[in-house]
Amino acid sequence: MAPRIVTLTTDFGWRDSYVAAMKGVLYSRCPGISVVDLTHDIGPQRIMEAGLFLSGAVPWFPKGTIHLVIVDPGVGGERHPMAAKVDGQYFVGPDNGFLSHLLQRFPLERAVALDNPERHLSVVSDTFHGRDIFAPSAAHLACGGKLEELGTELDVLETLPLKAVAVQDDGSVQGEIVHIDRFGNCISNIGTDHFSEACKAQVGKHKLAVARTYAAVQRGKAVALFGSSGWLEIAVREGSAAEKLGIDCGARVTLRRG
Amino acid sequence: MAPRIVTLTTDFGWRDSYVAAMKGVLYSRCPGISVVDLTHDIGPQRIMEAGLFLSGAVPWFPKGTIHLVIVDPGVGGERHPMAAKVDGQYFVGPDNGFLSHLLQRFPLERAVALDNPERHLSVVSDTFHGRDIFAPSAAHLACGGKLEELGTELDVLETLPLKAVAVQDDGSVQGEIVHIDRFGNCISNIGTDHFSEACKAQVGKHKLAVARTYAAVQRGKAVALFGSSGWLEIAVREGSAAEKLGIDCGARVTLRRG
Amino acid sequence: MAPRIVTLTTDFGWRDSYVAAMKGVLYSRCPGISVVDLTHDIGPQRIMEAGLFLSGAVPWFPKGTIHLVIVDPGVGGERHPMAAKVDGQYFVGPDNGFLSHLLQRFPLERAVALDNPERHLSVVSDTFHGRDIFAPSAAHLACGGKLEELGTELDVLETLPLKAVAVQDDGSVQGEIVHIDRFGNCISNIGTDHFSEACKAQVGKHKLAVARTYAAVQRGKAVALFGSSGWLEIAVREGSAAEKLGIDCGARVTLRRG
Repeated sequence: MAPRIVTLTTDFGWRDSYVAAMKGVLYSRCPGISVVDLTHDIGPQRIMEAGLFLSGAVPWFPKGTIHLVIVDPGVGGERHPMAAKVDGQYFVGPDNGFLSHLLQRFPLERAVALDNPERHLSVVSDTFHGRDIFAPSAAHLACGGKLEELGTELDVLETLPLKAVAVQDDGSVQGEIVHIDRFGNCISNIGTDHFSEACKAQVGKHKLAVARTYAAVQRGKAVALFGSSGWLEIAVREGSAAEKLGIDCGARVTLRRG
Repeated sequence: MAPRIVTLTTDFGWRDSYVAAMKGVLYSRCPGISVVDLTHDIGPQRIMEAGLFLSGAVPWFPKGTIHLVIVDPGVGGERHPMAAKVDGQYFVGPDNGFLSHLLQRFPLERAVALDNPERHLSVVSDTFHGRDIFAPSAAHLACGGKLEELGTELDVLETLPLKAVAVQDDGSVQGEIVHIDRFGNCISNIGTDHFSEACKAQVGKHKLAVARTYAAVQRGKAVALFGSSGWLEIAVREGSAAEKLGIDCGARVTLRRG
Repeated sequence: MAPRIVTLTTDFGWRDSYVAAMKGVLYSRCPGISVVDLTHDIGPQRIMEAGLFLSGAVPWFPKGTIHLVIVDPGVGGERHPMAAKVDGQYFVGPDNGFLSHLLQRFPLERAVALDNPERHLSVVSDTFHGRDIFAPSAAHLACGGKLEELGTELDVLETLPLKAVAVQDDGSVQGEIVHIDRFGNCISNIGTDHFSEACKAQVGKHKLAVARTYAAVQRGKAVALFGSSGWLEIAVREGSAAEKLGIDCGARVTLRRG
């Protein structure tokens, strides 16, 4: 069997040598491996941002893919290194809740603590488990090793509380903006399950009809729509909604019929 | 046959999960594929910038390479998804003129509209054709599929008007700065066909002899030369011409003998 | 034999087509090659920064890896193109001292000048040797070619003077901050060989006990430790030491017992 794909999602950026060192370990421990950069631009130590990122990316990868996810403010502290299988794909990283978004949609199949030192580098630093514990563990899986060879079974993983939407008595739904993308599109936590025909979205003083595509309005005009990952977003056609409407993360969004 | 190379050129940046989702689709639909990042830092929705970028990169790739190019301000609107073959290489993306620069130098061999829904994902969103239409089409080609299986033949592609140089009665050539690179080198639209020995370039009040290399002048001094892609550029040795000479995109450049 | 891995370390950034053109040459000249991005975010023309980056990354790669390193302020001038073998790995780039940090720890096995034009592209520009000389040379090695086929033997390589630490009469060690990473960790040039139990680090007016991990102090507090590459660093747990303590590159650091 050809080695599996290992993807990288980190908050390391590209300027320092941390990502490069991890790639070195992966290629050293599993010759023939395919390493795929997803992002290294997660905000420093922002676990929730990594969780949201993964929920938009992971479902498109094939079964058996290994995702190495290193956003690790607690390195050297009490959080445990772990590996998990969710919906046929593998995740390797600190047990700090980065899987929270995915575990809302997919069941945890299996998880282990990375407590078998035979699968780590021979010397393990206190400050860079990405290179010394997580990369060799991912390489082990990529070259056909089994999850249970990495350590002892875990029953549960850490999860972080996600912002829930509130359904009001009048049927309207209240959520908030949780991500602003490169184009200035403002993405909320209101999912397509709350969509119905002829509903309107309100953010600040702006009331917007919910359309199907950016092209439903003229250039420079604001529009609300359910975006490609299934979340209600506020956009400006060929412009930035965040700038034009003055929206930040945390802004309240209300979806109502009529 | 081993799967072909698929390159990615987008304006998605690395912060959002859009590039990662496209990679997931490519690896899912064509196992063994090689995906190569060219850039994700095209300015948001700047089609011309993508065209210029491609003209500096594509000619160096082997025949059969597939270039997935997603700078798509018109997604969900009237522009058509297309795939094209130009000089033995393939291009997949919106038909919005991103091939304009390359089509000045190389003939279009063949083009199709991506109107065969069997080659798309089973559910196609209105806002992310990169993932739902373009990536599976590129994967189809990478795994040995044919262009004509993607849809019906197109006779012409959209092209955008490129800024032309003007040759004056006195033999001088007028062009403009069309790109400023990371080093502050200011690249014009005047090509090597206008080069002759002992010519001088003028930008603003600066008159510069045309040299062969940055090292022709002392550190910190300005120089004009025909750069590695064949365009007249204004540079400062080990410094930024854009900063030092105060040059922006659009600045007029004149090349004359003398 | 499968083609070897070629890594890329440059100061080209991602916005221009320079990296993409080099990738095109690599894939054209050695089909089946694996190209791995280490970084393109070395500061423009900062050779020492590239050297430090490589010293943190290269030791983790397998023997036989080829590192293409293009930070080349002297392109077209007097510096020579070279290829070298150090500790079983290959380096291709300008002979300008980028190997200085690695050559402190590992002996030079062999080096050649890239003066065999048969291994270059058929037309070589004066401004982009990365594409025209270095990439085809790296591709030659990746496809099984030998170092001596690239040109004539070199006895020595250029090296740059590295900042040395000073050991005082009282046993204290004086060094300086040489790199600030994405998290604001301030990394010095004082190596673990100067570590002893119960020592303290001083930077500016701050005196810090040397700990093993960031988690040794409370969130927001400063700590000194020997980081994952073996250098004394000043950090703030889950924060930026550079910002919080006002530290810049060049700041003096003193390590003393007691």
